[in-house]
Amino acid sequence: MTRPITLFTGQWADLPFEEMCRLASEWGYDGLEIACWGDHFDVWQAVEDDGYVKAKRETLDRYGLQVWTISNHLKGQAVCDDPIDQRHQDILSPRIWGDGDPEGVRQRAAEEMKVTARAARLLGVDTVVGFTGSSIWKYVAMFPPASQAMVDAGYEDFATRWNPILDVFDGEGVRFAHEVHPSEIAYDYWTTVRALEAVDHREAFGLNWDPSHFVWQDLDPVSFLWDFKDRIYHVDCKDTKLQVGNGRNGRLGSHLAWADPRRGWDFVSTGHGDVPWERCFRMLNTIGYDGPISVEWEDAGMDRLVGAPEALDFVRRLAFDQPSAAFDAAFSTSAD
Amino acid sequence: MTRPITLFTGQWADLPFEEMCRLASEWGYDGLEIACWGDHFDVWQAVEDDGYVKAKRETLDRYGLQVWTISNHLKGQAVCDDPIDQRHQDILSPRIWGDGDPEGVRQRAAEEMKVTARAARLLGVDTVVGFTGSSIWKYVAMFPPASQAMVDAGYEDFATRWNPILDVFDGEGVRFAHEVHPSEIAYDYWTTVRALEAVDHREAFGLNWDPSHFVWQDLDPVSFLWDFKDRIYHVDCKDTKLQVGNGRNGRLGSHLAWADPRRGWDFVSTGHGDVPWERCFRMLNTIGYDGPISVEWEDAGMDRLVGAPEALDFVRRLAFDQPSAAFDAAFSTSAD
Amino acid sequence: MTRPITLFTGQWADLPFEEMCRLASEWGYDGLEIACWGDHFDVWQAVEDDGYVKAKRETLDRYGLQVWTISNHLKGQAVCDDPIDQRHQDILSPRIWGDGDPEGVRQRAAEEMKVTARAARLLGVDTVVGFTGSSIWKYVAMFPPASQAMVDAGYEDFATRWNPILDVFDGEGVRFAHEVHPSEIAYDYWTTVRALEAVDHREAFGLNWDPSHFVWQDLDPVSFLWDFKDRIYHVDCKDTKLQVGNGRNGRLGSHLAWADPRRGWDFVSTGHGDVPWERCFRMLNTIGYDGPISVEWEDAGMDRLVGAPEALDFVRRLAFDQPSAAFDAAFSTSAD
Amino acid sequence: MTRPITLFTGQWADLPFEEMCRLASEWGYDGLEIACWGDHFDVWQAVEDDGYVKAKRETLDRYGLQVWTISNHLKGQAVCDDPIDQRHQDILSPRIWGDGDPEGVRQRAAEEMKVTARAARLLGVDTVVGFTGSSIWKYVAMFPPASQAMVDAGYEDFATRWNPILDVFDGEGVRFAHEVHPSEIAYDYWTTVRALEAVDHREAFGLNWDPSHFVWQDLDPVSFLWDFKDRIYHVDCKDTKLQVGNGRNGRLGSHLAWADPRRGWDFVSTGHGDVPWERCFRMLNTIGYDGPISVEWEDAGMDRLVGAPEALDFVRRLAFDQPSAAFDAAFSTSAD
Amino acid sequence: MTRPITLFTGQWADLPFEEMCRLASEWGYDGLEIACWGDHFDVWQAVEDDGYVKAKRETLDRYGLQVWTISNHLKGQAVCDDPIDQRHQDILSPRIWGDGDPEGVRQRAAEEMKVTARAARLLGVDTVVGFTGSSIWKYVAMFPPASQAMVDAGYEDFATRWNPILDVFDGEGVRFAHEVHPSEIAYDYWTTVRALEAVDHREAFGLNWDPSHFVWQDLDPVSFLWDFKDRIYHVDCKDTKLQVGNGRNGRLGSHLAWADPRRGWDFVSTGHGDVPWERCFRMLNTIGYDGPISVEWEDAGMDRLVGAPEALDFVRRLAFDQPSAAFDAAFSTSAD
Amino acid sequence: MTRPITLFTGQWADLPFEEMCRLASEWGYDGLEIACWGDHFDVWQAVEDDGYVKAKRETLDRYGLQVWTISNHLKGQAVCDDPIDQRHQDILSPRIWGDGDPEGVRQRAAEEMKVTARAARLLGVDTVVGFTGSSIWKYVAMFPPASQAMVDAGYEDFATRWNPILDVFDGEGVRFAHEVHPSEIAYDYWTTVRALEAVDHREAFGLNWDPSHFVWQDLDPVSFLWDFKDRIYHVDCKDTKLQVGNGRNGRLGSHLAWADPRRGWDFVSTGHGDVPWERCFRMLNTIGYDGPISVEWEDAGMDRLVGAPEALDFVRRLAFDQPSAAFDAAFSTSAD
Repeated sequence: MTRPITLFTGQWADLPFEEMCRLASEWGYDGLEIACWGDHFDVWQAVEDDGYVKAKRETLDRYGLQVWTISNHLKGQAVCDDPIDQRHQDILSPRIWGDGDPEGVRQRAAEEMKVTARAARLLGVDTVVGFTGSSIWKYVAMFPPASQAMVDAGYEDFATRWNPILDVFDGEGVRFAHEVHPSEIAYDYWTTVRALEAVDHREAFGLNWDPSHFVWQDLDPVSFLWDFKDRIYHVDCKDTKLQVGNGRNGRLGSHLAWADPRRGWDFVSTGHGDVPWERCFRMLNTIGYDGPISVEWEDAGMDRLVGAPEALDFVRRLAFDQPSAAFDAAFSTSAD
Repeated sequence: MTRPITLFTGQWADLPFEEMCRLASEWGYDGLEIACWGDHFDVWQAVEDDGYVKAKRETLDRYGLQVWTISNHLKGQAVCDDPIDQRHQDILSPRIWGDGDPEGVRQRAAEEMKVTARAARLLGVDTVVGFTGSSIWKYVAMFPPASQAMVDAGYEDFATRWNPILDVFDGEGVRFAHEVHPSEIAYDYWTTVRALEAVDHREAFGLNWDPSHFVWQDLDPVSFLWDFKDRIYHVDCKDTKLQVGNGRNGRLGSHLAWADPRRGWDFVSTGHGDVPWERCFRMLNTIGYDGPISVEWEDAGMDRLVGAPEALDFVRRLAFDQPSAAFDAAFSTSAD
Repeated sequence: MTRPITLFTGQWADLPFEEMCRLASEWGYDGLEIACWGDHFDVWQAVEDDGYVKAKRETLDRYGLQVWTISNHLKGQAVCDDPIDQRHQDILSPRIWGDGDPEGVRQRAAEEMKVTARAARLLGVDTVVGFTGSSIWKYVAMFPPASQAMVDAGYEDFATRWNPILDVFDGEGVRFAHEVHPSEIAYDYWTTVRALEAVDHREAFGLNWDPSHFVWQDLDPVSFLWDFKDRIYHVDCKDTKLQVGNGRNGRLGSHLAWADPRRGWDFVSTGHGDVPWERCFRMLNTIGYDGPISVEWEDAGMDRLVGAPEALDFVRRLAFDQPSAAFDAAFSTSAD
Repeated sequence: MTRPITLFTGQWADLPFEEMCRLASEWGYDGLEIACWGDHFDVWQAVEDDGYVKAKRETLDRYGLQVWTISNHLKGQAVCDDPIDQRHQDILSPRIWGDGDPEGVRQRAAEEMKVTARAARLLGVDTVVGFTGSSIWKYVAMFPPASQAMVDAGYEDFATRWNPILDVFDGEGVRFAHEVHPSEIAYDYWTTVRALEAVDHREAFGLNWDPSHFVWQDLDPVSFLWDFKDRIYHVDCKDTKLQVGNGRNGRLGSHLAWADPRRGWDFVSTGHGDVPWERCFRMLNTIGYDGPISVEWEDAGMDRLVGAPEALDFVRRLAFDQPSAAFDAAFSTSAD
Repeated sequence: MTRPITLFTGQWADLPFEEMCRLASEWGYDGLEIACWGDHFDVWQAVEDDGYVKAKRETLDRYGLQVWTISNHLKGQAVCDDPIDQRHQDILSPRIWGDGDPEGVRQRAAEEMKVTARAARLLGVDTVVGFTGSSIWKYVAMFPPASQAMVDAGYEDFATRWNPILDVFDGEGVRFAHEVHPSEIAYDYWTTVRALEAVDHREAFGLNWDPSHFVWQDLDPVSFLWDFKDRIYHVDCKDTKLQVGNGRNGRLGSHLAWADPRRGWDFVSTGHGDVPWERCFRMLNTIGYDGPISVEWEDAGMDRLVGAPEALDFVRRLAFDQPSAAFDAAFSTSAD
Repeated sequence: MTRPITLFTGQWADLPFEEMCRLASEWGYDGLEIACWGDHFDVWQAVEDDGYVKAKRETLDRYGLQVWTISNHLKGQAVCDDPIDQRHQDILSPRIWGDGDPEGVRQRAAEEMKVTARAARLLGVDTVVGFTGSSIWKYVAMFPPASQAMVDAGYEDFATRWNPILDVFDGEGVRFAHEVHPSEIAYDYWTTVRALEAVDHREAFGLNWDPSHFVWQDLDPVSFLWDFKDRIYHVDCKDTKLQVGNGRNGRLGSHLAWADPRRGWDFVSTGHGDVPWERCFRMLNTIGYDGPISVEWEDAGMDRLVGAPEALDFVRRLAFDQPSAAFDAAFSTSAD
């Protein structure tokens, strides 16, 4: 098995980095997709303090872990978002939140994304995963009526804010992998098409494929891989269980908390939901994706210390390699 | 057929009221659900100008039309909404929009809803249909994380803003029928339960049942009628066609305009979509709903002058009455 | 259109026979499937009173109606049933009910079925439709455990009680068409197989195909016609609407009355339910069924005076004839 | 894992109690749900013989097994059933069957249910699982027509016969958990609603949730738990595989024996069928059910000595605990 | 209604052309899609005899019919087919069949396709509909193993044989519209992609969209229109009913004749099958298709004289025009 | 576990027979279904060289493997096929291909099938698995129109060519098990019915049940076993994954290679696809099939050295035995 399996540390940011390393190593993960929050990876320290990156590397080495990707969803989110409110304050560092003036928050978040590219380069990592935020997500219901002009302006805002960031990525030789996700500029198939057009398909902007949000939107995660095969820069494994069908649970989730059984869908540990994983992994083989398969562990109904190693086993079993020769090659020997 | 069929005038507000009456009458509608915008019905004039309501009544009479309901979705929307932005300016009168300061807009909109109750009473109408708006709709994706406290605050905000309005309704003996609809405080089953709790199930607050948004949320519009049978104050017939199933069209609509075939669902003329109308109408018989059945005509792919009379025919054919005796009564005569 | 469409009079037995004729004629039916209860057709009078049949015939002729079938479900039911109770008293004439002693009721009912064959012959009719009853229907849940021996005894009881009746049918040159239906000895595919074996596939015993009970049992009414093609002696059109899917309505109906929307399924007027009628009618063409298509009208949520003519229109439109030549015959002329 | 997993001994009553204990212990079960038949638990001996209960306890202790529940389905069944026949004689002891006079059987069965409550108390058990029987199950097909009065009488009969029994339960501080099941007074959602009303929701009467019969009736076992959350007194794990879909196998089972592949559904070992177990177990966590999860092993196509330990493994793996904190708690630390 | 509805004459080639015109005109069709076989349109005569085309035009004019398309499926089929056998002799004229030597047949068929382009031009028609045939259709089951090289050779053979024909089309300013159809080089989505690549997407080669074969292959006819929007040169309306679901009828049809109910699917008159016609017609509006909608009538279970006018009614009702303005335009007037 | 599990060697013919034995033995297979190509089993040598069979037997014994079946799909295929082309040359030995003249190839292939029966007898094996080929498979699309006469001729050709072969089988006391498979004379339910009729249901001709091709044709593999229970001579386990549902992948496979994710279905290792294995194995128990369960391993996306032992584990776990007594036997002891 040559393709590595990593664990995303975003949902473990309450644990010290070293503890995270110890656990992942013990469970048998090949490496980490490191979150740029908590004490896991501070991009400002990385670019400002010579020893910071080296110390992180040493910790990783001590536990035999590798890293191909760092992730900065929380700051990326703030780049385009509108409104900027309490929810952002809750997930941003004071350095970015500052006085909370929305436009200031957005610009400081954009600045951090540029720094993230530089930090990635210093860490020797080619891919940064994250969110873009969106100024038009609030129009998702299209009522009060959102005109085509308003929607167009949203994609333009995205391009205007992200192109300068992506220029820095280009300069560093690092790629940004946007996670297709509700509340972002690209959250489904056609918005992904539109977002890619908005940045002229520039190579610095690709996708982090996470199928969990495809399931409840009735999107096919398998053919999505095929259709965007040259943009699949990273893979996150999170799962979703549909819970509709009783006539009362709805697709929009009813503003209910995770693990509430009245939601129409919920995140569950990889392999416990409705993502057709084996077909997905086979498609990754077909399109020649050779990066890490990263477990993003989210399941509000299960203990994470139980779930994370179980998810690793699940992925290892199904994310098998392609054979070098097809089975029916054997037939052609029959005429010898 | 004793149950009347009306036409909602909201999507025809570009036409003069009299022209609207002429068309509805010609097509055979029994009455109108009159929109409180355009020149159809101005609630301020109704309470300020003695002759206004009388003149409206005369126009209706001239065309043999009745009225059981007036609707003020657009102002109701502004009562709780956050953010208040360009979209609201586009649909509000200058009187309500004023200087556009959000809190001022909300309060003036609330004021208009009170006036609407008084105008309804003057017009001799018991029911006002409308939207509530919502300060937490923007949290629908639950990312950035929206805490339980934020969600709770949204329902509280709703109660705080609407209770004084509903007091006026009570004073006038008029009921408010909230249309369960995305972008509102109650948009599915569980949020309806929660919203009713927020106002202590006060009788002034009921529901306008419009099944079109149930379809794409996987909610059952039929058992919804049963479960909230004492709160069904009005019925709007709008239809939705699901267009998912090709793996690329998603449930959230991709910010695409109406009639774009890449949307995962679209509004269509009543009878052209996936609402199980006959079962719905039978359920309305069962729960004893005896108000008007109102056609809310929305279909961006069809000419409304063709669609509105066709929808009337469709509803007339399926919204039949219950029989006075069951078929198997005949068996019991056999022993005579 | 050569295949006649008739109306079954069982659900109209509260109306005098002549009124029934007047209605059916007015609506355009070609004839009647006459119920042997109410005043519609009294088999005892038919065999005892020379003028009775003649008078019936005259009434039919006066309204231009024909008859191919008479039906005696209610008495047939009592032949094998166990227990015999209040429900039977409610639907049986005093002549059959007598003192209500179960075995006596069964034997008098059997006697009436023999008389029915003789009456059919006198009326010039080849087919009697009806039920068989069943001594083992009460074991349908298989709890308390019903042994194989008990089940076997049920089929034997059926054969023992019905063979003497069928002997009379053979003597009269009349066929009995059992309606496959819950509460009878044959209510689905495999019980039909078993029941036919129980009477050694004797020709006097065939089937009245009524697809309404197939729908909610997940049986395919179309291939049933193919599989039993030599036993389809009569066709009744009744429809069923499935109402499951909300997690609360169950397939067994919850002992709720007809038209209660909490039932998992309900009878509806032909064309309003889930029977795939057009495929059924095409299959009837294929197997060469050339008897009447009879509308058995049952819908507790619709007025029968509205429903019966509508059902006739529905059946006429879909029960079309086969062409004499296939469309692709035209291709072969191309080489001329 | 704090929630215990037990094995129901009803399907093993041919084995001596001690042998049953030895097997369950060896397989790793935490305890037993003991059947009140065979030599497993004789309620009369329990109340009449001081040493009986103590000896049972000692046997359990010797094998390290606990007990939270005893079950007396077979006698409960006879309390309301009508007809009472051979099937009951086969499953009742001579003490209850006596001369087989139906009313006598019913009263002696009721007496045993009272004794069962007393025996439960002596054994230190709070819950008795069982069936109620039903005088109206035989009307399930609603033909011959069962009037509303007849159905109402059935629920009344249930209340009349069970209230005195439940009084004894109240006296003993023991709860009765009725298993929702065809052939009983409550066999689906709406009949459960009705049955609870019939006994005025008295606390002594609750439910034994066994999802196996939900599957083939198209009921949702998950939301059933939510809707009756205060009445879930016990949980039995039995599974069902639907075998419809070929057009010939029907939902009613065709009076065919278990394991006959022509049945439309069949009982299978837990985890081999269509019950959505993981969602069920998560819902049990949500509603705070903290009683035993009991395996009721029924699968006529598999060896029980193979199946019982396999079912235990299956349940252990999926019936996991809830975490103490949600995954997204980690995000909020990011701003530190 | 500006978009014309035509009738394809291929399945009526046994009738004289004038009779065909009379019928189509009487039923209300706007024009014909004329088949190049029978006496309907002889392309050789058209190019060789000056008066032939003029006479055809006069006949059409006499009946008020127009023509936008001619069709030559039968000769197109022979261009690439392998094997060439009895089936081809049955549908080809002696001029093309000649001595039946396969390669000779193919070349004479190719010659006729060139002539067809010239004849179309003479008739004033821009589009020729037809089949391509295929040398690799016989490998559809991929057993005995068909290597990639064999498959590639099939597409090459197609390009080699059709490019010279398409050169003539280009010269005449006429387009060829291939009907995507089993037994042809392009029969589904991916083979259409491949076939278009094989001829370098040259403009002369487009598609005749006929959704009937999409249904049973599980292809989405609606998004196919979107994906190939610049290649939809013509539209044929034929319908298909799926008849699988009983476990015995298979998707491949079992070599059974049309109208045999054991086939897994069958052609039926437009509107009687599973094509989602309304969504298709709306999509045609969206992509701006403005050519004729042609009814290709094939239904071996229905009389064509009944079906053809019924199909016209069906198409007229659903193939409605787009409105000039969207419904929600009305909202924006509200602020006036 | 008494029913043996074997491995079919056809897809391993590139490996020497002894190596194949070593692997199968190491993985724990009970025996082999030996392919009559490669060096695995040469039927001509078997009948011509006294020591050949003995040597094979010794090799098998050395590895503790048994054999119940030999398979000769590749030569069987050539008996009826038309056209005979490059694909056949690729899979036939020079002895059979000879000069490649189609009729000569067919006759030599028929001769080898007779020899295969003799070789089977010498090896002590009762069953030969294989294909029949088909002269009418090329008509599967029924276009150009294939007349009933052509189809009938295909079945006749099959009977004519195979009856003499089957005579030899009868003489040797060996049975031929045809694998129901596209490209063969019997590829689905109704063609199996027809093929059995064509050879008058002679006992020498039975079926090799391989459910992989049932899945994508929408056939029920479970009831197929029931319906042809007396003809199930052998069982091959191969699995298929449906990959339709995105609107673009079609049931016919688009002439794409195995493992291409654009195919509408693909072969996958047993247990990775959509075959309802457990229900199949239970049905095999019910009909009393007691032959080997053979794993035919085909999965172009997985390494066969990983897949073959995994498939064995899967089959062992689900292909369990029936119990000797049913679970509810225990109830009847309760009255003791």
